[in-house]
Amino acid sequence: MISNIDHIAIAVNDLDSAIQQFSALTGIDPESVHIEQVPSEKVRVAFIALGSSKIELLEPLDRSGPIATFLEKRGEGLHHIALETANLDKELERTQKENLHPLSSPSTGAGKKKIVFFNPKDTSRVLIEFVQKM
Amino acid sequence: MISNIDHIAIAVNDLDSAIQQFSALTGIDPESVHIEQVPSEKVRVAFIALGSSKIELLEPLDRSGPIATFLEKRGEGLHHIALETANLDKELERTQKENLHPLSSPSTGAGKKKIVFFNPKDTSRVLIEFVQKM
Repeated sequence: MISNIDHIAIAVNDLDSAIQQFSALTGIDPESVHIEQVPSEKVRVAFIALGSSKIELLEPLDRSGPIATFLEKRGEGLHHIALETANLDKELERTQKENLHPLSSPSTGAGKKKIVFFNPKDTSRVLIEFVQKM
Repeated sequence: MISNIDHIAIAVNDLDSAIQQFSALTGIDPESVHIEQVPSEKVRVAFIALGSSKIELLEPLDRSGPIATFLEKRGEGLHHIALETANLDKELERTQKENLHPLSSPSTGAGKKKIVFFNPKDTSRVLIEFVQKM
């Protein structure tokens, strides 16, 4: 069962500039924004906490990763939604019975959390990530 | 100040089929999904509650509204993020000082809530809605 929307992810060209824009929009202090690198996805990531969810800003680390490819094809914009679960393995078993298939095996995302992405063709072309609650 | 992500909106061609897909994905009962029409936006809307946020599925009521246009140009996919505030007028005053401009005056959205959309050019081409908490 999915308990929460963990984050909504946005692909951006310039992380620092996007942090300024989204801080101005939401009224949060830009100094409070958590930034980290996720080498497996080749991105630098900023999390803007809003209640029990977050906006995740994604800037490519080089020109070869999935976010660099997305930006080149489509430009900046909404990239994916991440849904939180207490038990990722159990959710993978449940969704497999529903004929929904992950794009790969679980890997390690931002915050060292266990994550998996699903094939967007099954969900109105929206890329969905499941994140295991820590 | 923004307190929460109210919902993340997805444009879909067929609402009933999308409700089935997202119910299968999240494990929620499709019978629990709230559906309503929002004539001002020319859409039929379904809300899938996930913790304190929701996934909002948007199906055009005819071929003339903003969601019909979006689907024709870009196909199904992520459409906008809605952020919740306790005081919309105060947030509009605050964001005006930040040089962020709404696309129009506040109007009435789903659930008869007071809403306003911002110009996506200021936020990495992401369409942002502010929703007044009820």
